[in-house]
Amino acid sequence: MAGSIFGDIFSVATWGESHGKGLGVVVDGCPAGVPLTEVDVQRYLDRRKPGETKYSTPRKEGDKVEILSGVFEGKTTGTPISMIVLNTSQKSRDYSEIASYYRPGHADYTFDEKYGFRDYRGGGRSSGRETIGRVAGGAVASKILAELGIEICSYVKSIGDIEIDPGKMKLEDIEKSPLRMPDLEASERAEEFLADQMKNHDSAGGVIECVISGVPAGIGDPVFGKLDAALAQAVMSIGAVKGVEIGSGFAAAQRSGSENNDEFCIDKDGKVSKKTNFAGGILGGISDGSPIVLRAAFKPTPSIFTEQGTVNQSGEEVKVQIKGRHDPIIVPRAVVVVEAMAALTLVDRMFVGMSSRMDRIARFYNSSTAQKNYDKL
Amino acid sequence: MAGSIFGDIFSVATWGESHGKGLGVVVDGCPAGVPLTEVDVQRYLDRRKPGETKYSTPRKEGDKVEILSGVFEGKTTGTPISMIVLNTSQKSRDYSEIASYYRPGHADYTFDEKYGFRDYRGGGRSSGRETIGRVAGGAVASKILAELGIEICSYVKSIGDIEIDPGKMKLEDIEKSPLRMPDLEASERAEEFLADQMKNHDSAGGVIECVISGVPAGIGDPVFGKLDAALAQAVMSIGAVKGVEIGSGFAAAQRSGSENNDEFCIDKDGKVSKKTNFAGGILGGISDGSPIVLRAAFKPTPSIFTEQGTVNQSGEEVKVQIKGRHDPIIVPRAVVVVEAMAALTLVDRMFVGMSSRMDRIARFYNSSTAQKNYDKL
Amino acid sequence: MAGSIFGDIFSVATWGESHGKGLGVVVDGCPAGVPLTEVDVQRYLDRRKPGETKYSTPRKEGDKVEILSGVFEGKTTGTPISMIVLNTSQKSRDYSEIASYYRPGHADYTFDEKYGFRDYRGGGRSSGRETIGRVAGGAVASKILAELGIEICSYVKSIGDIEIDPGKMKLEDIEKSPLRMPDLEASERAEEFLADQMKNHDSAGGVIECVISGVPAGIGDPVFGKLDAALAQAVMSIGAVKGVEIGSGFAAAQRSGSENNDEFCIDKDGKVSKKTNFAGGILGGISDGSPIVLRAAFKPTPSIFTEQGTVNQSGEEVKVQIKGRHDPIIVPRAVVVVEAMAALTLVDRMFVGMSSRMDRIARFYNSSTAQKNYDKL
Amino acid sequence: MAGSIFGDIFSVATWGESHGKGLGVVVDGCPAGVPLTEVDVQRYLDRRKPGETKYSTPRKEGDKVEILSGVFEGKTTGTPISMIVLNTSQKSRDYSEIASYYRPGHADYTFDEKYGFRDYRGGGRSSGRETIGRVAGGAVASKILAELGIEICSYVKSIGDIEIDPGKMKLEDIEKSPLRMPDLEASERAEEFLADQMKNHDSAGGVIECVISGVPAGIGDPVFGKLDAALAQAVMSIGAVKGVEIGSGFAAAQRSGSENNDEFCIDKDGKVSKKTNFAGGILGGISDGSPIVLRAAFKPTPSIFTEQGTVNQSGEEVKVQIKGRHDPIIVPRAVVVVEAMAALTLVDRMFVGMSSRMDRIARFYNSSTAQKNYDKL
Repeated sequence: MAGSIFGDIFSVATWGESHGKGLGVVVDGCPAGVPLTEVDVQRYLDRRKPGETKYSTPRKEGDKVEILSGVFEGKTTGTPISMIVLNTSQKSRDYSEIASYYRPGHADYTFDEKYGFRDYRGGGRSSGRETIGRVAGGAVASKILAELGIEICSYVKSIGDIEIDPGKMKLEDIEKSPLRMPDLEASERAEEFLADQMKNHDSAGGVIECVISGVPAGIGDPVFGKLDAALAQAVMSIGAVKGVEIGSGFAAAQRSGSENNDEFCIDKDGKVSKKTNFAGGILGGISDGSPIVLRAAFKPTPSIFTEQGTVNQSGEEVKVQIKGRHDPIIVPRAVVVVEAMAALTLVDRMFVGMSSRMDRIARFYNSSTAQKNYDKL
Repeated sequence: MAGSIFGDIFSVATWGESHGKGLGVVVDGCPAGVPLTEVDVQRYLDRRKPGETKYSTPRKEGDKVEILSGVFEGKTTGTPISMIVLNTSQKSRDYSEIASYYRPGHADYTFDEKYGFRDYRGGGRSSGRETIGRVAGGAVASKILAELGIEICSYVKSIGDIEIDPGKMKLEDIEKSPLRMPDLEASERAEEFLADQMKNHDSAGGVIECVISGVPAGIGDPVFGKLDAALAQAVMSIGAVKGVEIGSGFAAAQRSGSENNDEFCIDKDGKVSKKTNFAGGILGGISDGSPIVLRAAFKPTPSIFTEQGTVNQSGEEVKVQIKGRHDPIIVPRAVVVVEAMAALTLVDRMFVGMSSRMDRIARFYNSSTAQKNYDKL
Repeated sequence: MAGSIFGDIFSVATWGESHGKGLGVVVDGCPAGVPLTEVDVQRYLDRRKPGETKYSTPRKEGDKVEILSGVFEGKTTGTPISMIVLNTSQKSRDYSEIASYYRPGHADYTFDEKYGFRDYRGGGRSSGRETIGRVAGGAVASKILAELGIEICSYVKSIGDIEIDPGKMKLEDIEKSPLRMPDLEASERAEEFLADQMKNHDSAGGVIECVISGVPAGIGDPVFGKLDAALAQAVMSIGAVKGVEIGSGFAAAQRSGSENNDEFCIDKDGKVSKKTNFAGGILGGISDGSPIVLRAAFKPTPSIFTEQGTVNQSGEEVKVQIKGRHDPIIVPRAVVVVEAMAALTLVDRMFVGMSSRMDRIARFYNSSTAQKNYDKL
Repeated sequence: MAGSIFGDIFSVATWGESHGKGLGVVVDGCPAGVPLTEVDVQRYLDRRKPGETKYSTPRKEGDKVEILSGVFEGKTTGTPISMIVLNTSQKSRDYSEIASYYRPGHADYTFDEKYGFRDYRGGGRSSGRETIGRVAGGAVASKILAELGIEICSYVKSIGDIEIDPGKMKLEDIEKSPLRMPDLEASERAEEFLADQMKNHDSAGGVIECVISGVPAGIGDPVFGKLDAALAQAVMSIGAVKGVEIGSGFAAAQRSGSENNDEFCIDKDGKVSKKTNFAGGILGGISDGSPIVLRAAFKPTPSIFTEQGTVNQSGEEVKVQIKGRHDPIIVPRAVVVVEAMAALTLVDRMFVGMSSRMDRIARFYNSSTAQKNYDKL
């Protein structure tokens, strides 16, 4: 695949550039019968919308989504769902200068090497606006998960070296924090830190944590199709992500087996459970019924307003100063993008996994032979 | 895909269990004309072989590979390369007891949930022996990369909290260290730490670093097909890996943009280069010509000999003590597995990317029209 | 894949229903640098447009295509090309009755069984309008082929039992015939036959032939990836196609080996050629440099105006009479659809095949090692 | 994919050449819990075995299959099933001469063009022995179908211009006919015809018909994922197949809509059925519950013993006479290959289709939310 299609059974094909006519996504493989309206999708898109706080670009776009196909009388039909968001506020003239040189930390140089030239207006396909298609597709995936009792909760865990205190974390505070940090004390300190960074014409990164609860045990495939591997690809494919971890993650490398193993136990409902969750809900690449916990590390926004050295397209070293509108941090707006990628991945792997057992297939197709052979099971 | 096939154009399908008749791989999409012998593959397999040091299981297996197809007169023919390693030393009786309970930190429970039952002998398909297929396939990929002047170098960066000192690192020491740590002082300290862990019937994890040099700029696709996303999936699919990072990785989240951006410059050969490589050789998901740097965090071996609480298949909480032969650390043996996955990924993405530019396609197919239209370019 | 995505490297994702807001396609994997405008695509769409002759539905739609992304300054950028055609003339009320019963020869019943319900307006996703996405995508593929000197020519070979006489066939007459039959005498007889069918409230089918010239030898893969297998899937996926054949096709089954084998020879340019082309340009699934010849059999339009027996959604047998606007034959309008599918398939297989030889890969990536090893070849 | 892997969820990767060490297949995506032994697979392989009658090559091979993985205590485990058949009787010396020229009707020339050289011994990967992997994989797929009450019946419909009389066809006669023609009178005439062809050092082709009964309605996907399109690719990928048709096939092109439409009716069990089956069990690419009927046209064996003109690798026109052991007709031995490809395709499409409806997914995953939302349906 050339890059803009994701998923084996529940697939999305995203398209669009920052400064083209619009952006969108085609969702193929959505089951029929899922209740879906534009409001469901808009709610997700609004969470990534620019212009909400002082820490995001002042570009005021409606980013209104329109569903063009695949929904009939309020329900998905099983056929492709095409969604579009028109670009309304781009100003191409802002970008005329940067056509001539390679911005440090951006994909200008690599696009030129790959394609021979690039749509230099606003980063083209490597712009943060590319995530509109992901989020719209993820909204559909999240609807499916909700029907199955599966919920995804994401938030900012740290900005720079300011981290939320797990003891003080309250999930209901996520949207109360302008930085989506569910520890309002840490959030305030992070705001001060960001004010400083902006004063210095600099930028910051951070870590997003995502917790998926209600996932039945048994999702994911051994070897290359591991659920954590699929999540890692999905999350690492978000621009600016430089690291992904599951459960105890990098810290696991420093722990002893006796510390890191989760003992199994029987919970109060008589079901198999685990006393701890260092595994992050995945064992051998397959979900174990505990919440899935992943974290993504985002690098600082590369668009900074201090002078930087670089090279122009004539091959000369030059000093440049980036202008325009750029978030000093993208992490709070990326929370919903991580959530979208997690949802897309999980739905796809759940659908792929429906044929892992002959007894369940036989019951699903409900043949009389199947009843004879498998109903006693 | 159900899980055991990896790659879009250069694909491997691996198979085999720890205690079955053998393990192997089918490589499909290997170009014709690559010089390949069993010696080339054996060299890679020997690097993951058990029984080499006191830190790996004493199981003495030859793990001799046989090439069954796809090679004719010393060269690949372009058709599938089937390779097999027969199991020779497995003892099924060692595993009879563990059939009845779920080992903490292992995939016993999740396999049962997914498949309804499991081949309990030695972990079946979630055994470390599963990596034989990856490494044999990776050996073929590495041969292709070598023909293109691309080299992969991997080593152990840390064990527990003992890390190599970059200032003292010597790549030529990798194989001198029984732990594949190219800082012999750190390696010695890690040996002492492991001796302690073994005494305590405990285990340890660590971090592997992998550096790929000679990769041309322009490999990888935007959005979902990013080279770093593909590498993340590949490496996270290795059993026991809990985190993956590229370049400055998780540390990037704590850095300022001005610290983390790599300035472009012109090198002494007049080519575009970068003054630093915090990006780890990838910008916007596409290789930038600098070395690609990735790290994988491995959890401690879950098979420990101290008593642990768990649940048996009758749903009762029990205390268990694991027996048998188990490495106190798998990280040194996993170095070649990380390398194999990196090679498989890179070859596949290089092949996918050959059609990214019309001028290059036209020259490749060399039509007269193409000459007219594109030879001036 | 769920069904609306086609192609491994050069992929299209089509979407849209007959009576939704519009239809479209996202092309992913188009190389950068292909000259492309809306005029290029419109030319193809106009060939499938309804309302052109008395043998097609009088529905007057503009079917104007808009390119939304992936093109910058008149050239493709390598990123997804999203194209849309808005529906402008659909009348939902025409279809209110047919919601209640299953039209013979249509997909009403099978959609209900698969999805639980259906968008009954105009056939939804099984409407002939679905081909708009294919044709728009095929127009892009044809542009790429044209750059490589490859041309596709398609026409109607027969309607009912009236067949063109190969001796009288003139390709320049294709568009002179309202039925796209390049033997104007046969075309006239077919017109009379169709007038009779319409008088009887009946419909007709036919055969389309497609000839692809200029394809280099060596395209296609052995075993499952055969070029003819890929073409068969592509063409059989067009609604109403019930048979596909390559070269001598079904007639080959009645021939002797000595009649059907094509002898190789040296042509006047000193190149390997064949004296005959019963193989239809493909040997062992791989193109042999001769023109590729395929034929597709289309069933008669199932929407006929005579009374038919069927079953309604309450499970009762009923008599029905279909109303509305329906072509008595779709074959002439399907010519461009066959061409589009052939183009999409060929481009995809050409791109997949670029990595079949190590020497060509080495030259493509042009490394110094490659030069050493392969330039002597 | 490079060509030797087939299927999206239930996948096979086949490997091996006529004159290598052996041939085999890796089946990935087989559900756990299917009863499977080597006897099940051997039964299928025996149906394609050479040396059974005077119409097939006298090469006496055991073609004994060995299952190397994926089966534990008589049942599939859900992990890859690797199967191997060792080559025991090949004689490389028979093929030394043909290395130098291109056999008419064979893939020698196209392999050379694609790969730069070829394994000339016995056709390498384009040999009929390649089908061993397909048939072994198909045997597993057929086991799954049998568990679901689905049966495939295939036979030779015609050889040369001798066709079975549908009125005299008895399926129980398939294996009584040395040509697998279930009309023993036609079979006898075909034997006489073949005796003549052999006398003339010539060969013959024929048509195989395949009927799949018990398929539930609703299998297959709209647009590109149509069940008939998938079957067409699968069957056309068999060497020597030049045409594929479904239901009334090419004859449909000559019929009127009123003749070709199948009227729906209510059968004696009160279920929706069809009065006729010209559609061949598929409407709009989705199974309709009637038997699926497909036919494949095989060209005559290209290896004939009369003198033929061709070109050698030095680019000279030469006269050649092929030697060795070659079937005058491969159609009877190909019956099981068509059946295998049909089974592989159907299982894969059934697995892909399990996620087409939200209500069924919800019941499958059986969440409490699902029960609330969907159990009333």
